[in-house]
Amino acid sequence: MKEIISVIRINKVNETKKALIDAGIPAFTATGRVMGRGKGQVHYDILNGAAEGHPEAIAQLGGAPRLVAKRILTVVVPDDLCKTAVDVIIKTNQTGKPGDGKIFVTPILETIRVRTGETGRDALN
Amino acid sequence: MKEIISVIRINKVNETKKALIDAGIPAFTATGRVMGRGKGQVHYDILNGAAEGHPEAIAQLGGAPRLVAKRILTVVVPDDLCKTAVDVIIKTNQTGKPGDGKIFVTPILETIRVRTGETGRDALN
Amino acid sequence: MKEIISVIRINKVNETKKALIDAGIPAFTATGRVMGRGKGQVHYDILNGAAEGHPEAIAQLGGAPRLVAKRILTVVVPDDLCKTAVDVIIKTNQTGKPGDGKIFVTPILETIRVRTGETGRDALN
Repeated sequence: MKEIISVIRINKVNETKKALIDAGIPAFTATGRVMGRGKGQVHYDILNGAAEGHPEAIAQLGGAPRLVAKRILTVVVPDDLCKTAVDVIIKTNQTGKPGDGKIFVTPILETIRVRTGETGRDALN
Repeated sequence: MKEIISVIRINKVNETKKALIDAGIPAFTATGRVMGRGKGQVHYDILNGAAEGHPEAIAQLGGAPRLVAKRILTVVVPDDLCKTAVDVIIKTNQTGKPGDGKIFVTPILETIRVRTGETGRDALN
Repeated sequence: MKEIISVIRINKVNETKKALIDAGIPAFTATGRVMGRGKGQVHYDILNGAAEGHPEAIAQLGGAPRLVAKRILTVVVPDDLCKTAVDVIIKTNQTGKPGDGKIFVTPILETIRVRTGETGRDALN
């Protein structure tokens, strides 16, 4: 079983969830608001403004990379659906512009449905 | 060391924490608000209403499964306390109705207490 | 690849992020508000007040350990930067007083940059 944690644009969350459901990913999903930092995750107007010497733009850039609000979408899937889920998330979120987000895959040792005590794939479906 | 992530009803968080403490689980806990999706996690009145053709109920169901607000409760425990912790969480949260939640177990490679630099079990107790 | 989850004081988040950047840790970071519980994470005035028998202090202690608001800071790093990142987090957050926080290290199986499909270290830099 794998946990697929994707850090994506806030306005892509619903579309991503819908695409996962359409792909038959029956997993639990959870979202949270986060502040992400990444190479290039600065609004280009600000970068351009700073390059042109506008003091407001330079002040906004500051000494550290800017933070952008993102959502975390977490999906737990059986191993054989991991690639499908990752592909769906990429396809739905890839705009080609910086800030499309990142995907992390982590191991899940056990999954249990509280109501029935079912484990593994049965706990997800 | 294991991380036990449980996604449970909001009104069960305090009772679950208390039960874990009573069971001698000395772990760090963290909670966050999440929106979960699962089979059957729709209010039965809405499902019944939709089945009977009430337009408001059908509109609420929409095309995708409904989301229900849940809390995530995270506990980090030594391996030998993992089963106890899972059992406590199940026992406290099992009502038999859909929406009781799910438990995920993930591996923790290292735990460090910042103040002392202690690692492993010493960092938890 | 490793995920380093640190649960630290809210007023240490910015300093920690800055120190990680200065150490050349190019990782994605995410923060969330959590309620942590740990040994000794009670304000000493309350503990002392309870020890002296003040009813307000005893009421505040209640039957369970107090919760303190913390932030979670998550960093994903290549394996060879894991120790550096942990050391930076310890150095920045170690005040010697209870409540300095905890660090958990978990495995990341795969990292993908959505925009380019790059994986592994390339997806982080």
